[in-house]
Amino acid sequence: MSVDGMRTFGELQERLQHFVDEREWSRFHSPKNLTMALTGEVGELVEHFQWLDGKASEALEPETREAVRRELADVQIYLMLLAGRLDMDLLEAVDDKIDENEGKYPADKARGRSDKYTNL
Amino acid sequence: MSVDGMRTFGELQERLQHFVDEREWSRFHSPKNLTMALTGEVGELVEHFQWLDGKASEALEPETREAVRRELADVQIYLMLLAGRLDMDLLEAVDDKIDENEGKYPADKARGRSDKYTNL
Amino acid sequence: MSVDGMRTFGELQERLQHFVDEREWSRFHSPKNLTMALTGEVGELVEHFQWLDGKASEALEPETREAVRRELADVQIYLMLLAGRLDMDLLEAVDDKIDENEGKYPADKARGRSDKYTNL
Amino acid sequence: MSVDGMRTFGELQERLQHFVDEREWSRFHSPKNLTMALTGEVGELVEHFQWLDGKASEALEPETREAVRRELADVQIYLMLLAGRLDMDLLEAVDDKIDENEGKYPADKARGRSDKYTNL
Repeated sequence: MSVDGMRTFGELQERLQHFVDEREWSRFHSPKNLTMALTGEVGELVEHFQWLDGKASEALEPETREAVRRELADVQIYLMLLAGRLDMDLLEAVDDKIDENEGKYPADKARGRSDKYTNL
Repeated sequence: MSVDGMRTFGELQERLQHFVDEREWSRFHSPKNLTMALTGEVGELVEHFQWLDGKASEALEPETREAVRRELADVQIYLMLLAGRLDMDLLEAVDDKIDENEGKYPADKARGRSDKYTNL
Repeated sequence: MSVDGMRTFGELQERLQHFVDEREWSRFHSPKNLTMALTGEVGELVEHFQWLDGKASEALEPETREAVRRELADVQIYLMLLAGRLDMDLLEAVDDKIDENEGKYPADKARGRSDKYTNL
Repeated sequence: MSVDGMRTFGELQERLQHFVDEREWSRFHSPKNLTMALTGEVGELVEHFQWLDGKASEALEPETREAVRRELADVQIYLMLLAGRLDMDLLEAVDDKIDENEGKYPADKARGRSDKYTNL
């Protein structure tokens, strides 16, 4: 654990792996299946936002907020399991992707625009 | 940075926030919009797996593997941005969700079964 | 064909089936895989709307509009193929679902509200 | 209605529009929001297939089969509403897309292959 008692990303991945192993669920966890499970959780997350406008989505009711927090956790969990199953380092992949995006979206060209880099 | 030179989860979230701020993209990043962006990235991830069977999804071609790694990063990035925008601690949410799942899926009842907890 | 020369829903399903058979693609088209393909197409559709607000999504640029139209077609195509593979009549399923929704969402209670029927 | 008493695609779209109008729901139905609702329904559909292998997905348990049929209807309903809101003819779009795919995937080159047309 880190100094403040919170688990790190790596510790959570280990905790998850232990949880899955204890239940012998790895037989269900092909990357294909985990990708589908990830999709399902994202679908549940989206349902909380579909009828809200952008502004309302910033200020969720407490009950919705708690439900959203639990859906975010589910999405993160399947993402960790998927990366683990594929033996990929998620944080390293993110770091590399930000490097790449810094090249594709130079700050001075991309400022205030939502265009794809191919249109900058 | 951690001892081995890799960025931690929190450091990556800060790096992302800096990246977004520099480009003045936060105006586009309502939770609603970020949820949609997350969905789009998951859709791109799924496309790599849709015609593979479970076994083939374990042993990706190098080119597909690299593409999948980059999609995983994109999903993780939008998830971090969404949690950040909602001012939620993703890792804490995951930790809490595993606690909850330990209660819902006791190892001795859930072993080797993919049923929902309501059917255990 | 119908009187005005347009193909009916059933004729399009037949046309699609013929297209698939000619290419011997049915081996890839398990319901599981078709569901994933459907997800992927929905993800592509979502990407066109993610940074627009509700109002802008009503008045798409001509180029976006054409792209959206083609994504809608892809979603419809996989939905038809999936229903066909499962030997289900999509139109009948829709008709039944509207019947059901009329019971769950009485017009006088549901008017102007986006709540789930369980909250009406 | 058609000869056999079943509603046609166009009649179902009209029935749906009437259902929505009676409840004054069109205020929620921007294309952006309908796209999200579509995503949510696809997520629910996917959940029925995520732990099944391809073969099992062909032979659903009766209860799952009925649930899947209702999810297919929900996906079709939001797709119809979205096309209606955008004033697009879904069936015509499908017909045009099949024309296009016939060009991109010549039967003799695409036979038995799941590759994207750019790789044929």
